[in-house]
Amino acid sequence: MADFAPQPVDPGRVDVDVGAGTLRPEGPTLVRRLSDLEGLFRDQDAWRRDVEDGDRVVYQVSSSRVPEEPRELPQSITTILPGTCGGELYMTKGHQHPDPQGEIYLGLAGTGGLLLHDGKRTEWVDMAAGVVGYIPPGWAHRSVNTGNEPYRFLAVYPGSAGHDYGWVVEHGMGSRVMRTDAGHRLVAWDG
Amino acid sequence: MADFAPQPVDPGRVDVDVGAGTLRPEGPTLVRRLSDLEGLFRDQDAWRRDVEDGDRVVYQVSSSRVPEEPRELPQSITTILPGTCGGELYMTKGHQHPDPQGEIYLGLAGTGGLLLHDGKRTEWVDMAAGVVGYIPPGWAHRSVNTGNEPYRFLAVYPGSAGHDYGWVVEHGMGSRVMRTDAGHRLVAWDG
Repeated sequence: MADFAPQPVDPGRVDVDVGAGTLRPEGPTLVRRLSDLEGLFRDQDAWRRDVEDGDRVVYQVSSSRVPEEPRELPQSITTILPGTCGGELYMTKGHQHPDPQGEIYLGLAGTGGLLLHDGKRTEWVDMAAGVVGYIPPGWAHRSVNTGNEPYRFLAVYPGSAGHDYGWVVEHGMGSRVMRTDAGHRLVAWDG
Repeated sequence: MADFAPQPVDPGRVDVDVGAGTLRPEGPTLVRRLSDLEGLFRDQDAWRRDVEDGDRVVYQVSSSRVPEEPRELPQSITTILPGTCGGELYMTKGHQHPDPQGEIYLGLAGTGGLLLHDGKRTEWVDMAAGVVGYIPPGWAHRSVNTGNEPYRFLAVYPGSAGHDYGWVVEHGMGSRVMRTDAGHRLVAWDG
């Protein structure tokens, strides 16, 4: 249970360690393996095989100590490892903000993409180091590693926005992102 | 007058040009000369002389096209040129958010500092490339160039936070940041 009156946060310095993919001083770290991404890849047989065959880490999220509380502006670094499951590129679960507010991702290393879906429209933003991807309020978002190295980005988001992962399970993301010889391509959600 | 229903912002890509200090595609750019910083440096005689002697640019702010509207998360790059006025290091005007919300600054180039004041306490965060300075809700903030090169940082802030420059004129920032042989030091506001 959260404290009734959250501790005020002091001003502070957070060091971005691009090589390690961490923010120091470190806050919570979250690791997502293939088994945590149940029902998200299209090829469920491939997913089950890959879970049994080592259950690889797909991504991890290293947060700063700024809490997810109203009026705060927390940050985190996400690292998505390179790989595919049934031809679909490794990706985050994706989420919608229950309290619709904008968010930014700043590419730090590797190459990837930001897939956005508002229930009708789907957008794709190519991401690399030095690129800000802007997620407007009301757009669900998922990140994808399109390269052969870890893809890493800094997220900055309002502490009251929240994370609704069920929205993506219910509505999908409009497109799936598949590995091709030339790199990647977007295909229809059920195609 | 703002539109009654602001245009929704589409998802998009914003390129951080660290060398130029711009976000592309470019939004509004603001240039602050010494004459725009009236009443902010302690040595008013030195300030008047410097205004008459060329009125140098102290800093500029290059914004992205994400608007300062509720629920959006705009970004900008500020570049503070190296220099002093009456021994006080070049700095931004400083502001408080009328709607108290957190903000982050990410150092991009050069060296500087983030001076924070909540009306009682004063804090200082050393800034450089790869450092996030966290500004909690309720803390006025000013940036200072402590080096000999342009100091540049990316700001990310809630679109509804607003900018109150008068607060700093009324309450001060607790400390002033002076050039010394060794670099810089903080001195008492009126000292």
